[in-house]
Amino acid sequence: MLVFAGALRHLMGTMGKILVLYFSKSGNTAKMAAEVAEGARRIEGTEVRLRSVAEAGVEDVQWCDGIALGSPTNMGTVAWEMKQFWDVKMPDSWGKIDGKLGCAFSSQGGWGGGAELTCQALQTILMNFGFLVFGLPDYVAHQFTLHYGATLAGEPREEREVEACRRLGQRLAEWVAVCVDGRRDQHPLTSGRKRFPW
Amino acid sequence: MLVFAGALRHLMGTMGKILVLYFSKSGNTAKMAAEVAEGARRIEGTEVRLRSVAEAGVEDVQWCDGIALGSPTNMGTVAWEMKQFWDVKMPDSWGKIDGKLGCAFSSQGGWGGGAELTCQALQTILMNFGFLVFGLPDYVAHQFTLHYGATLAGEPREEREVEACRRLGQRLAEWVAVCVDGRRDQHPLTSGRKRFPW
Amino acid sequence: MLVFAGALRHLMGTMGKILVLYFSKSGNTAKMAAEVAEGARRIEGTEVRLRSVAEAGVEDVQWCDGIALGSPTNMGTVAWEMKQFWDVKMPDSWGKIDGKLGCAFSSQGGWGGGAELTCQALQTILMNFGFLVFGLPDYVAHQFTLHYGATLAGEPREEREVEACRRLGQRLAEWVAVCVDGRRDQHPLTSGRKRFPW
Amino acid sequence: MLVFAGALRHLMGTMGKILVLYFSKSGNTAKMAAEVAEGARRIEGTEVRLRSVAEAGVEDVQWCDGIALGSPTNMGTVAWEMKQFWDVKMPDSWGKIDGKLGCAFSSQGGWGGGAELTCQALQTILMNFGFLVFGLPDYVAHQFTLHYGATLAGEPREEREVEACRRLGQRLAEWVAVCVDGRRDQHPLTSGRKRFPW
Repeated sequence: MLVFAGALRHLMGTMGKILVLYFSKSGNTAKMAAEVAEGARRIEGTEVRLRSVAEAGVEDVQWCDGIALGSPTNMGTVAWEMKQFWDVKMPDSWGKIDGKLGCAFSSQGGWGGGAELTCQALQTILMNFGFLVFGLPDYVAHQFTLHYGATLAGEPREEREVEACRRLGQRLAEWVAVCVDGRRDQHPLTSGRKRFPW
Repeated sequence: MLVFAGALRHLMGTMGKILVLYFSKSGNTAKMAAEVAEGARRIEGTEVRLRSVAEAGVEDVQWCDGIALGSPTNMGTVAWEMKQFWDVKMPDSWGKIDGKLGCAFSSQGGWGGGAELTCQALQTILMNFGFLVFGLPDYVAHQFTLHYGATLAGEPREEREVEACRRLGQRLAEWVAVCVDGRRDQHPLTSGRKRFPW
Repeated sequence: MLVFAGALRHLMGTMGKILVLYFSKSGNTAKMAAEVAEGARRIEGTEVRLRSVAEAGVEDVQWCDGIALGSPTNMGTVAWEMKQFWDVKMPDSWGKIDGKLGCAFSSQGGWGGGAELTCQALQTILMNFGFLVFGLPDYVAHQFTLHYGATLAGEPREEREVEACRRLGQRLAEWVAVCVDGRRDQHPLTSGRKRFPW
Repeated sequence: MLVFAGALRHLMGTMGKILVLYFSKSGNTAKMAAEVAEGARRIEGTEVRLRSVAEAGVEDVQWCDGIALGSPTNMGTVAWEMKQFWDVKMPDSWGKIDGKLGCAFSSQGGWGGGAELTCQALQTILMNFGFLVFGLPDYVAHQFTLHYGATLAGEPREEREVEACRRLGQRLAEWVAVCVDGRRDQHPLTSGRKRFPW
C-alpha cells in the first residue's frame, strides 16, 4: 500500500534526498550552497548532493525529493548560466517531475540589490515544473530573516548569514521528511527546533 | 506513530480539508471561487469550505490543510480587502500555521492585465506564513494554462476557463492528499487523471 | 542651453531612437518584435532598429533613447539567451546608460503561462541599468490590454494581438518624444490618439 | 510652443513637483518618507509634499510630476491601508494621469523580509496608472544599494540607510527635472553628483 512508502523508506534508511544546485562565478553563491547543504544534513537520514550547474545533470533533479536552487543576482535576476540549465537540459523532464519540494538562495552585490527578486524568479522556474515552493517565517537573528529564500550581500561571513543558509537547507530537509516520508515528528511546528531568536 | 496519521485520517473518513478563500466585488472572482471549490471535491474524501473574506475567520485558515486564495486584480495586485484579512486578522497565527498547501486565482479586467502578478502576490502572502505554494504545469486546452495560478479576464464562461478553476482546486486537493494524508495514489503523476489536451 | 536639445534634435530631424531587441527560437517573439517596431514608426521622426540578441551589440543599446525588450516565456521567465546578452555584453555599460525609456513583451505557450512574469523580469533588468520602465493602461480591445507589457500566447494573429504589440512600440516612441525630445504634443493624454475601445 | 514648457516653468520658478506618499503604522516608513522628501529637496526648485495616505487626496497625486510611494512590508507585500488608497480614491483618475515619474520604498521587519517584493508591488500599482518607474544603480555605501527602491530593516539609523532614502528622493527630483522640465543639466550621468562610493 503506497501510503506506507515513507515508513518503508524510513525503515530501510533511505530517506530524504536533497539536491543543492547552484551556479557561482565569484564563489559567493558556491559558499552559500555549501552551507545550505550543511543545513540539510541536520535532519537525520537525509542524503545530500551538492552540484554546480556544470556538474549536474537531469538525473540529479529527477533523483531528488527536494531542491535548493541558488544563483547570484545578476542584473536583478537569475544568472544566464542557471537559466540555461533549465532551458536546455530540463525540458524533457517537464510535466514528469511534479510535486518535489523547492526553495531558493541568492548572493547579491549589496543589500537592496535584487536577491529577493532573484529568489522569486528561481521559485517561478521551480513552480513551472510543478514543484511546491516555500520560504521561511523564521528569523535567524534580530532583523535577519529568509522569508522568500536566503539572501546575502556578498559571501556568508557573519554567524547570522551562515545560519540563514543552513536554516534554508534544514527546512527543505524537514519538509521532505514531513511531506514525502511522512515523518511528522520532523514538522517545524512541533519538532522543538529553534525558529526565532526570541 | 505519527507516520500513520494520514492512514488513520483515511480510515476515519476525515481527510483533506480545503479552504477556498476569496474577495469579490463584481462577482467574477466569486464565480471562480465556486469552481475552484467544485474542483477540490473531485478528490474523494475532501472537505471543502468556500468563504469570502467577510465570512471567514482565523479558525477557517487554521482548520484547513490547503488553501486556494482568490482576489480580483485591482491596479495590478491584490485587492485591499483581501490584504486586510491577512494584515488584520492573521498576525497572531503567523509562525504557527506553517506547512499548509497553497495556491492562487485571480480575475482581471483583460488579458495582460496583471492577474499573474496578483497570483504571485497572493502566493507571497502564503509563503510569508510558511505555506508550500504551487502552480500547475497542466494545460486545460490549447494555449490555455494555469502555471502560476488560475487567471481569467472577467468571469469563467468558456469550458477551458471553468476547467482552469476546477483544475486548480483539484490539484490542491491532490497535493493535500499526497503530502498531508500520505495518499500516494492521488499523486498527479500516477493517478491517471488527464493533465494535458494532447 | 541644454534645455533646447530636444528642440534642436527636432529641427534637425534627428529624433527619437528606438531599439527593439529580442530573442526568438520559435519565431513567435520575432513576429511580435516586428510589430512593436512597426508601432514605434507611427510616431513621426522616430528611427527604429530591430535587432535579435545575436545581431545586436552594446552600441545599439547605447545608441537608443528607448528600448522594447522581448523574450519568449521559457519556464516562467526570461530565456537564457536574452539574459546572456545583458550578463555578458552589457556589464561595462552599467551605470553609464541611465535614464533611457524601457518596456517589455513576451510570447508564452498559453494564457496564464507566465508572460507577465517574464515582462516583469525584463523590466527588472532594465531598471537595474537605471532605465525608466512603463506599462500601458490602454486597452486595445474588449478584455485585452498590455498593462505590464505586451503578452501573447503563441504568435500575433488576431487584430487585437497585433495592435497590442504595435501600441507598445507606439507608446515607447511617444514617451521618448515627450521625455527626451520635449515634444509635449506627443503626450498620450493630449495627442488625441485612441487609447481605449470605448 | 509646448517644447518650451519646461523652460518656462524654470523661468517662473515653478518647477518639479514631488509627492512623497506613505503609510506607516510603527513609524519606520514615516521616517523613511521624511528622508525621501529631504532628498528631493536637494534638487533646486523642487516643491515637495510629504503626505500619509490618511492626509493625501486625489488632488495630491494629480498635482505631482513624480511620486515616491512608501509602505511597510506587511506579509510580503503592500500594506492594505496603502492599497486601499489606490483602490478606493484613485480609480476615477485612472487613464488620466499617465507619464508621471514613480519610485518606491519600504521598511521590512528584517533583511530578506520582502521589502524588494513590496517595492515591486508598489511599482506595479504605479505602472498600472501609466507611470514611468525606476530604481537606482547607485550604491550609497559598500554593499548597500537601492536598485529597485529604498529598502530597510526597521527605521533609518545608519548613515547609509538615511542616504538610501535621500538618494531615492534626489533621483526622483532629478528625473522630473530632466524628463518633465527639460533641465538636462540635472541628468545623473552628467550632473557630477556622487553616485558610487568608489
